Amino acid sequence: MSQDELKKQVGYQAIDDYVTSGMKVGLGTGSTAAFAVERLGALLKSGELTDIIAVPTSVRTKEQAEELGIPLTTLDEFSRLDVAIDGADEVDPDLNLVKGGGGALLREKMVEIVADKFIVIVDESKLCDALGPGFPIPVEITPFCHEHTIRVIADLPALKGKCTPVLRLGSSTNNAKDGDEPAVTDNGNYIVDLEFADPLADAPAAAAQLKATCGVVDHGIFIGMTTACIIAGSDGISVKTP
Amino acid sequence: MSQDELKKQVGYQAIDDYVTSGMKVGLGTGSTAAFAVERLGALLKSGELTDIIAVPTSVRTKEQAEELGIPLTTLDEFSRLDVAIDGADEVDPDLNLVKGGGGALLREKMVEIVADKFIVIVDESKLCDALGPGFPIPVEITPFCHEHTIRVIADLPALKGKCTPVLRLGSSTNNAKDGDEPAVTDNGNYIVDLEFADPLADAPAAAAQLKATCGVVDHGIFIGMTTACIIAGSDGISVKTP
Repeated sequence: MSQDELKKQVGYQAIDDYVTSGMKVGLGTGSTAAFAVERLGALLKSGELTDIIAVPTSVRTKEQAEELGIPLTTLDEFSRLDVAIDGADEVDPDLNLVKGGGGALLREKMVEIVADKFIVIVDESKLCDALGPGFPIPVEITPFCHEHTIRVIADLPALKGKCTPVLRLGSSTNNAKDGDEPAVTDNGNYIVDLEFADPLADAPAAAAQLKATCGVVDHGIFIGMTTACIIAGSDGISVKTP
Repeated sequence: MSQDELKKQVGYQAIDDYVTSGMKVGLGTGSTAAFAVERLGALLKSGELTDIIAVPTSVRTKEQAEELGIPLTTLDEFSRLDVAIDGADEVDPDLNLVKGGGGALLREKMVEIVADKFIVIVDESKLCDALGPGFPIPVEITPFCHEHTIRVIADLPALKGKCTPVLRLGSSTNNAKDGDEPAVTDNGNYIVDLEFADPLADAPAAAAQLKATCGVVDHGIFIGMTTACIIAGSDGISVKTP
């Protein structure tokens, strides 16, 4: 089965298992989440689901949902969602995540943190023993004195000597290209990618220290947020809960 | 003695007592801090101080320092300072502060948190039994879904039912005017002012919960940062340490 077919399976299953009529639904961003959006649109069209309203986590997802006729809203209207469904870049054994390679981490976290259930959908290549080496951890920082902030981050107790911070360059974080200028997020901030050679020993500590840092807006470590993780593998689909 | 004269006294004393030749100095913003900048410029000009380099916390302070010939740098060059000197909008008995009425809170905190000594200079009108009622606490938030973020802030355990959040309006945070549009900080963010009728019972908890909130960039509560507070009162000058 192709990787696309695996992504489709978990995307469809997330909608089938966790979304019922009348729900407010957070819609993630990326190639796996796009299959969940596709399924939601189909079930609304067929009438199997009704009275759904959704909050997209990116412009791209918003456009896809609009094309499919999914009614949309924002967190400004509803601060609490029944369920959110999204992919992840890395998933550790406690179902802590790294997300935000695309630079949408703040919007994704803002939506997914207010969902009663957060369903993560991945293929098994995203599973890891510990966060860090498999995928750089993105940190959104304010542009003012960003070189200083990057040094402060690299010096945090949970990170000191363990990561190489790399300022992301490119014309935009969602469509990164090589360039001499820092990439700028939707919120007007920069992204620094923390590259790890070895596993991050204490991801919750790193997450808390990063967010507490002056100049850090947010980061791509999602701790304790996952309700269930639907995993597509060569042996079929499995579901993990924390 | 006029209030201006009191401000001058503490501004001058901060430089005289805490700045020696060769130091890297953080320069605050506001009418009291301006007297410290004035004194630093005078002592450099007279030769009583030499080999000083300073980091200003605002464009206004930068301009004043340049006019006085004070050599300037940024945190991108030096991530550690010997001393920073600034005013405050409120000072509690533990020398925790509320700062940032002008909207420069992020830059001020970024500079003052990396100083080995942070000297606060105020007249006695700024002293309070507890933070909160005397001066609204500013919180810098990302514009995206800010109405949602304001609700989340008002619902934090340390703040719930205790404050009224008010989105700051105006053409700029440093030169606030009435207006229908949200004021925008130097970093492109919004400011919500938390207005309290009663004293804030646990300022450190409120500070930690605010900074940990998704969508909050930083806030104007300065916990555990003050090395000494120089206070000008009708009885003369006094110095408090934590």
